Amino acid sequence: MSNAPLNNLGIVKRNIVRADKAAVEKLSRFGVATIHEAMGRTGLIRPIMRPIYPGARLCGTAVTVLLQPGDNWMMHVAAEQIQPGDVVVAACTTDNEDGFFGDLLATSFKARGAKGLVIDGGVRDVKDLTEMDFPVFSRAINAKGTIKATLGSVNIPVVCAGAHVNPGDVVVADIDGVVVVPAAIAAQVADAAQAREDNEGAKRAIFASGVLGLDYYKMREGLEKAGLKYID
Amino acid sequence: MSNAPLNNLGIVKRNIVRADKAAVEKLSRFGVATIHEAMGRTGLIRPIMRPIYPGARLCGTAVTVLLQPGDNWMMHVAAEQIQPGDVVVAACTTDNEDGFFGDLLATSFKARGAKGLVIDGGVRDVKDLTEMDFPVFSRAINAKGTIKATLGSVNIPVVCAGAHVNPGDVVVADIDGVVVVPAAIAAQVADAAQAREDNEGAKRAIFASGVLGLDYYKMREGLEKAGLKYID
Amino acid sequence: MSNAPLNNLGIVKRNIVRADKAAVEKLSRFGVATIHEAMGRTGLIRPIMRPIYPGARLCGTAVTVLLQPGDNWMMHVAAEQIQPGDVVVAACTTDNEDGFFGDLLATSFKARGAKGLVIDGGVRDVKDLTEMDFPVFSRAINAKGTIKATLGSVNIPVVCAGAHVNPGDVVVADIDGVVVVPAAIAAQVADAAQAREDNEGAKRAIFASGVLGLDYYKMREGLEKAGLKYID
Amino acid sequence: MSNAPLNNLGIVKRNIVRADKAAVEKLSRFGVATIHEAMGRTGLIRPIMRPIYPGARLCGTAVTVLLQPGDNWMMHVAAEQIQPGDVVVAACTTDNEDGFFGDLLATSFKARGAKGLVIDGGVRDVKDLTEMDFPVFSRAINAKGTIKATLGSVNIPVVCAGAHVNPGDVVVADIDGVVVVPAAIAAQVADAAQAREDNEGAKRAIFASGVLGLDYYKMREGLEKAGLKYID
Amino acid sequence: MSNAPLNNLGIVKRNIVRADKAAVEKLSRFGVATIHEAMGRTGLIRPIMRPIYPGARLCGTAVTVLLQPGDNWMMHVAAEQIQPGDVVVAACTTDNEDGFFGDLLATSFKARGAKGLVIDGGVRDVKDLTEMDFPVFSRAINAKGTIKATLGSVNIPVVCAGAHVNPGDVVVADIDGVVVVPAAIAAQVADAAQAREDNEGAKRAIFASGVLGLDYYKMREGLEKAGLKYID
Amino acid sequence: MSNAPLNNLGIVKRNIVRADKAAVEKLSRFGVATIHEAMGRTGLIRPIMRPIYPGARLCGTAVTVLLQPGDNWMMHVAAEQIQPGDVVVAACTTDNEDGFFGDLLATSFKARGAKGLVIDGGVRDVKDLTEMDFPVFSRAINAKGTIKATLGSVNIPVVCAGAHVNPGDVVVADIDGVVVVPAAIAAQVADAAQAREDNEGAKRAIFASGVLGLDYYKMREGLEKAGLKYID
Repeated sequence: MSNAPLNNLGIVKRNIVRADKAAVEKLSRFGVATIHEAMGRTGLIRPIMRPIYPGARLCGTAVTVLLQPGDNWMMHVAAEQIQPGDVVVAACTTDNEDGFFGDLLATSFKARGAKGLVIDGGVRDVKDLTEMDFPVFSRAINAKGTIKATLGSVNIPVVCAGAHVNPGDVVVADIDGVVVVPAAIAAQVADAAQAREDNEGAKRAIFASGVLGLDYYKMREGLEKAGLKYID
Repeated sequence: MSNAPLNNLGIVKRNIVRADKAAVEKLSRFGVATIHEAMGRTGLIRPIMRPIYPGARLCGTAVTVLLQPGDNWMMHVAAEQIQPGDVVVAACTTDNEDGFFGDLLATSFKARGAKGLVIDGGVRDVKDLTEMDFPVFSRAINAKGTIKATLGSVNIPVVCAGAHVNPGDVVVADIDGVVVVPAAIAAQVADAAQAREDNEGAKRAIFASGVLGLDYYKMREGLEKAGLKYID
Repeated sequence: MSNAPLNNLGIVKRNIVRADKAAVEKLSRFGVATIHEAMGRTGLIRPIMRPIYPGARLCGTAVTVLLQPGDNWMMHVAAEQIQPGDVVVAACTTDNEDGFFGDLLATSFKARGAKGLVIDGGVRDVKDLTEMDFPVFSRAINAKGTIKATLGSVNIPVVCAGAHVNPGDVVVADIDGVVVVPAAIAAQVADAAQAREDNEGAKRAIFASGVLGLDYYKMREGLEKAGLKYID
Repeated sequence: MSNAPLNNLGIVKRNIVRADKAAVEKLSRFGVATIHEAMGRTGLIRPIMRPIYPGARLCGTAVTVLLQPGDNWMMHVAAEQIQPGDVVVAACTTDNEDGFFGDLLATSFKARGAKGLVIDGGVRDVKDLTEMDFPVFSRAINAKGTIKATLGSVNIPVVCAGAHVNPGDVVVADIDGVVVVPAAIAAQVADAAQAREDNEGAKRAIFASGVLGLDYYKMREGLEKAGLKYID
Repeated sequence: MSNAPLNNLGIVKRNIVRADKAAVEKLSRFGVATIHEAMGRTGLIRPIMRPIYPGARLCGTAVTVLLQPGDNWMMHVAAEQIQPGDVVVAACTTDNEDGFFGDLLATSFKARGAKGLVIDGGVRDVKDLTEMDFPVFSRAINAKGTIKATLGSVNIPVVCAGAHVNPGDVVVADIDGVVVVPAAIAAQVADAAQAREDNEGAKRAIFASGVLGLDYYKMREGLEKAGLKYID
Repeated sequence: MSNAPLNNLGIVKRNIVRADKAAVEKLSRFGVATIHEAMGRTGLIRPIMRPIYPGARLCGTAVTVLLQPGDNWMMHVAAEQIQPGDVVVAACTTDNEDGFFGDLLATSFKARGAKGLVIDGGVRDVKDLTEMDFPVFSRAINAKGTIKATLGSVNIPVVCAGAHVNPGDVVVADIDGVVVVPAAIAAQVADAAQAREDNEGAKRAIFASGVLGLDYYKMREGLEKAGLKYID
């Protein structure tokens, strides 16, 4: 048997390439839906991930962590890898909604400069997290405590709630969901989002004046061609 | 093969019989639970449909729309059929939680006088919708964008989250859920709801004074007959 | 065939042993996560149970009720057994999310001194319950009304959303979930929770200062022994 | 308050217009997917409905029944309305997976000539039903027994697992799902299904020979126009 | 702080009172639905628990085990407590569908005389288990492996998929589900099941002859009194 | 705005590096649970993916396809990229259970030498697929037809039911689930699986003879150290 590693467990990558700060800052101005559209309708994490309090919003570069079920050991390992402006993105090797994260870890993360957490699992101490205004997007709120017994990894590529996330990618989350922007295209996506948003403001005024999308987008011909029939 | 239409896709019905305005207005004064009880415990949409912001509430006449998965073309067609006081009720030909609706469509709907949206699918731009106070009851919040490629229909009877809705029916929604009142009985249901509500106020005071439902509703005999035993 | 009862339906137990009042009062000062940890990570109800309004919180001694699907007859029977400081814990013989509970029952429960309701089912009149500040933790919000036809029981041991609850046990609920403390160990659990909380305050300051859990909990050696590798 | 009925509960309609027998017979030759396509991709019940044993298949005219949660009283009422060739389609006023149906009701239904059952709920005695070869498509298998206390209705329009079913409609079910064909278009749909099937046999041979759908359906131009790029 | 144990983790009870062998044997002759009815419609585990292969069936006395998420250490501890005729009933401290059990543990369990497993979690090696004819009723089939790091308990009372199970209780499972019979009433329940079954045979013949439940159970008067209306 | 592509839609990669044929052949001899363990408990797709017929099993190299909701256009594009020994792995840009695949596509895939399909969506024509013995692992069986309107991609990295899959990776599926082996380590994983299997045969005999895992794995000391207490 050869010696190649059979998995990527038990690894902490210290040096990751974070998306350009200016691009991150620019992306932070846009909503998740806008960024997702700017990427050609890609990049979304599944909508089971929800903010734990009203108004939660985050934008930052991903420090990724792969957890084991009922075990938050790696969250402590991840804390040390956080740099100001990072968002921790936590995945798990199986479906598990235990409370991997609470106020003490949030205090640690915040002290390191973290902008928030996206976790495909549960969190607790939600009242404290809300008071700290530490934004978390999670699959569940769950008081269930966890152990510290098994290795996962930090800063490897992970799949979080259906989306592939590389360490350093930009993660943006608001009430509409969570979107992941690959670091390499962060600036272009920010530009595309800006272009889209510039366009939206004008459109909103037009629709508010009573112009229909049918006319503005010139859909009538297409609909007729597709066979749409108006009856009385 | 004969020429009868094999389905009701690709149709927009322009003239629908809306429930009587006075009945709609009267129904708007009652909660969903009261109206549902007044209808003999019928008319409810399944409870997976939830308001997208606290305090969302709507009452109006249904403009129905049947969507295709991942496709919101028909929402634009529906916009033109909206009259002041209408609520759009959107169903889909399959289970799909994509974000069929956002702030631009809401602007259009509002410009036409729509009172809100009930959609067996997802919506996005929830922050904007909240600021506009445009009430939506949906199965999901989801930034996922949609295309405009396939015909559905507008103002045909639809099944929305387990309930049959005809265009023109009254739809009432609040934090307790969504109820559909057939147009033909809207006035009677409003009367029955009023009668029920008149009755409730008195009851609340009675129960607040410490009288038990056991005594007020004279349940003790029935319970004993059914075999209920008190032990120490 | 012998005459032993084949089930525990149709029973109301009047005299139950409630947890010591002082212990209940002491437990009311702690969060659900803290109490759950103090019990060695046991006692939690499944996280599908959620508060019906922001800020809902309760602590009291359990009056249990076993419901039949679509039937809230036993809720009225339970009302009479409530003493000041009690929390009603409602289970059902099957999975059912109908609206077993609303404003009138809440008025009755409150008049008897109830501190709230935990129900593995649905509730309605949520606007009223919120205005009354009557805390409810439930599986669903659902306007669906119920009948009064079949016997269940009151103050028998029940399984509520995955947890075994005996009448008289302490039930504590907040945004993190619901925890059940057996009456016999309520005082000890309160002590253990206090000890844990005393400890947490100090820890929070330490982590806020930038000390890592890795160092504070001395995890580095264990992680290395488990094989964790740092790479660049 | 006027006297119009506020709901359609407590009704048994004796005379219903069943789809033409020849059309039903013709439809029985086709699979569910074929019929659904012949109807322009409409008519499907949601895919949560599954056969209770391998090879279960049914085709017949709908006798509809609306059940109350945990209550199968109306199933007995429905039995009397069954005529040879009918399929009972059972809906419920709420989501409930109790075991509304078992071997005794199946014996009764079979004695009346029923071809099977489609039920948005649970069934039990599945071993017996399998031995009887009485096909059932249900949401769940569940031993939970039911009571007989509350009225629903028989032969009113119902919504069963997301589809609207009128009494007399043709219901066809196989391993791919359940489809509902309105009685009025049963013959046309059967013709369209036949046309589709005639076509499929030829296609299967063509694809088996290695011809690609890309070529057979002439998709290459459309794909290129949509912007598809081949890279190495 | 006092010294009472704060939970029941880390315990193995060696001596448990198993239900009477004759009663177990007698119960093994009946289906789950029959036993559940004989207990007054109680005792069922939630219907999410399904057999892993067609024809799986079991009846025996419960050895209970409480697992931790992603950890099957206690399954090995439980193996030693198995006596011929036992069924292992496994619960977990949280919702977790990992594969806690496979062919090696099954071999061990079988060597000790176990009749099968009921587990609120996942199992794997299903092909082997099928070939061994070792019946398992589980929430999931899942290849996900588990660790051996954290204590649970063996032979304490557990909640398994919504049902309370005491060690020594009789557990019966077939295609209709899983039912738990408290050891103390096993004999009475067996008698009641026999009485019920004696009765059913006759009924089946009657219904097969075309007699309706409406007449056999004399339901017509009750239905009329409840207000049922026949219309044409 | 720069010109970097903002997403990877609309791409077909023709040349992919498939895992070594000998390694694939070797992996085909092992079960999914064994391979998953050999990879250090990694590589599993979520257990919602189930075989559509008993005995379905597959092993091959991945041709990946990213679908749009309700649209199977890309399946036809994927067909052309299939080489003998490939398995098609289909993901979707959103959660969608429509029937993307049926007997005609299966005929095409088979003609190209495909070993089967793993699809995070629905399939239909299951009777035909079973007769063809064309193994499919899917999230749902669903007759719902799809359109051909929107571009996805072929042979890009995808996330399928929670697992990252690169084109050319080895995919193995059986009744226990689906596992993905990166092409680069296929040979090592096969070796590790072989080593594991060699070991299992011996163990099975030992456990069948009555030796307990407690003794064979020398767990007693660890359990005692962890605090396990035996009581009577």
